Amino acid sequence: MAGGTRSSGIAIIGSGVAGLHLALLLQKQQIPVTLYSDQTAAQLASGRMLNTVAHHNTTVQREEALGVDHWDLTEYGYFCHHHYLGGPQPLSFPGAFRAPSRAIDYRVYLPRLLADFQERGGDFRAGPPVGPEEIFPLSQRHDLVVVATGKGGASAMFPVIAAKSPYTRPQRRLSAGLYNGIAPSHPRGVTMSIAPPHGELLEIPTYSASGHVTALLFENVPGGDTEVLADAKYDEDPAAFDRLVFEKLRAHHPEVFERVEVKRFGLTRPEDLLQGAVTPVLREDYVTLPSGRVVIALGDAHSLVDPIVGQGANSASYSAWELGTVIAEDQIFDERFARKVAARRADRVQAISDWTNLMIALPPAPHLLQLLGAMSQSPAVADEFTDNFNAPERQWDILATPERTSAFLARHGM
Amino acid sequence: MAGGTRSSGIAIIGSGVAGLHLALLLQKQQIPVTLYSDQTAAQLASGRMLNTVAHHNTTVQREEALGVDHWDLTEYGYFCHHHYLGGPQPLSFPGAFRAPSRAIDYRVYLPRLLADFQERGGDFRAGPPVGPEEIFPLSQRHDLVVVATGKGGASAMFPVIAAKSPYTRPQRRLSAGLYNGIAPSHPRGVTMSIAPPHGELLEIPTYSASGHVTALLFENVPGGDTEVLADAKYDEDPAAFDRLVFEKLRAHHPEVFERVEVKRFGLTRPEDLLQGAVTPVLREDYVTLPSGRVVIALGDAHSLVDPIVGQGANSASYSAWELGTVIAEDQIFDERFARKVAARRADRVQAISDWTNLMIALPPAPHLLQLLGAMSQSPAVADEFTDNFNAPERQWDILATPERTSAFLARHGM
Repeated sequence: MAGGTRSSGIAIIGSGVAGLHLALLLQKQQIPVTLYSDQTAAQLASGRMLNTVAHHNTTVQREEALGVDHWDLTEYGYFCHHHYLGGPQPLSFPGAFRAPSRAIDYRVYLPRLLADFQERGGDFRAGPPVGPEEIFPLSQRHDLVVVATGKGGASAMFPVIAAKSPYTRPQRRLSAGLYNGIAPSHPRGVTMSIAPPHGELLEIPTYSASGHVTALLFENVPGGDTEVLADAKYDEDPAAFDRLVFEKLRAHHPEVFERVEVKRFGLTRPEDLLQGAVTPVLREDYVTLPSGRVVIALGDAHSLVDPIVGQGANSASYSAWELGTVIAEDQIFDERFARKVAARRADRVQAISDWTNLMIALPPAPHLLQLLGAMSQSPAVADEFTDNFNAPERQWDILATPERTSAFLARHGM
Repeated sequence: MAGGTRSSGIAIIGSGVAGLHLALLLQKQQIPVTLYSDQTAAQLASGRMLNTVAHHNTTVQREEALGVDHWDLTEYGYFCHHHYLGGPQPLSFPGAFRAPSRAIDYRVYLPRLLADFQERGGDFRAGPPVGPEEIFPLSQRHDLVVVATGKGGASAMFPVIAAKSPYTRPQRRLSAGLYNGIAPSHPRGVTMSIAPPHGELLEIPTYSASGHVTALLFENVPGGDTEVLADAKYDEDPAAFDRLVFEKLRAHHPEVFERVEVKRFGLTRPEDLLQGAVTPVLREDYVTLPSGRVVIALGDAHSLVDPIVGQGANSASYSAWELGTVIAEDQIFDERFARKVAARRADRVQAISDWTNLMIALPPAPHLLQLLGAMSQSPAVADEFTDNFNAPERQWDILATPERTSAFLARHGM
């Protein structure tokens, strides 16, 4: 490294998409890096489902640049959003991407990228979770420490930015699972089905260890009719659980329900279910240790978002890319460096956080409903909203205030 | 404008380089703009010298893009810095630009650009100075108000950022004038002559109403031997003033003095002298009026710097360009817009402020002296420092801390 006094490079804690994309980018730039994880490759590949996740095309482009674009978009990609807004007069309308998105189960995705990293000579170390008390010793052995996991407690070292973290509790209770027996939509896409006031369903064509399956992510408003999906115990009675999901689809999400093949419908495997909830927070970009060393927050350690618009992985990958770029530009890892990182990624990461927080606000913001209504009337508006999943800062340009939504619609003659 | 409810476009207060570059950029993008000034074109062309100013090549490139690059660099440009560091063992060494800089007296420059703006149909309004009390009514008549002048008191509406404004009084007392009778340096360049502990002299080949002349900017440390240059009254005894300058050149700045032609030496015209001082401040990028309208600070209203490294005009032009670009991208002028502007220009504008403040610090920072010493030994180091006048954020990468300077020198094998 510059100055020649330290030589152990960058330490990345966490082998999720944030840590792996950063590790692969640094490796590509021949910057020494050590990737620490609390899971071996085999552990990453097994166990309970980690999340439901969509990689939008901007993320796919980073995967191409990193040489880890292993899943051909023709087979593995999806091409649009199908929107359904329930109510007395349901609305149904598509929105197209300019370039495809892709959803790969992380128990397939992460081990494959880890293998890429290791096959290219990458230094990967699996061990016990890295807690906050281990950050300082790590910072003495490395030029820079990056905390790229929301697990293990290390993220708590980054103060929460209260002005950007409006919720003190989850706004949705989640039930995410992989299912057989749902025919794909045409064109193949994600269905965003909104069932006021009970919550939303994201139906995502996903590739997993079971092959091409369907992820159903129920975003359940506490107290609503679908909240039970976040509590029902699959293991106690698998058939009853599948029936419950089937009934909730029938009751609230007809455009997904109409594609269900009754006999085949059901969770793919017991471990393909994740129930929980997220309290979204945005944390400071970095902290400075008493020694003067900075520690950078990345991915969930920096910005934890509800999965409702599938932006968490994209935020993490984007943020990793910006961080890796600044690391290559300026290898003095001080506060000036950390502020550069913060400034470089601020607009998109904050837009993702702000936009996601708006999407789960209760009651829904009138200007969000105004936009959804306009999307149902204007394919151009629906397409722009959809393609903005690749440019969340432009989405926030449209949604940050009611005035912005009105001005956007005025530009579309509405 | 977007939404169609307002139509009077952007109001720019101030016809300095910040206001004119912004006005020309908006005009080029066919965005309605009104340029307000407290001076007519004729007043801009006459009167006392406004400043000494160098436009580095990044600024020249913006002038090219705006179609106002009227002064051919072969004749009007300069190509390097000549450094002289006085002391028991004086150091003398050049530093080269990759592309030329240019210095045009603003009494020539500003009226020419104003003529360009008006010939292209620009709306220019000369009147009394715009005070803070007129900002609100202006904001009601325009989509956005930009305060692009340090004069008239309107800049006081932008709070000073204390953490970025280390000085409560001027660190130098200034004496800037245009002189005849100094032969150009070869290659034609600016001489930065440092006379510890008395201060610095910038000698700038400048084009003015008198033709090609020499600007001498004496940066005088209070209490030092050259401070008298900031107080001496030219009008009371022109010959005595010229003799005083001559003597100070002889005593402190031998590399400029050796090019003085005694018989021709003297101030070009009585009005070609400016004596004063600057307390540098960095102010907030914008304020939000009680009505919700934002007002943007630009140029001296945003960042007021000592002229010691000739960055003020370049900061203003850069900042105007970034502001004009964001205006073209996002015509909803709310806090989100204002924060985008702030984020976009922060790194360079703050680097200029921080670097300039370091250059006038007393006593000089040891790592600055270390860098100057290294420049005298390494043409590559001297050239990089010199060319970084075009990239102040890279200069600050080198100078922000002693560790950064050491790492930079280590990269040069020093």
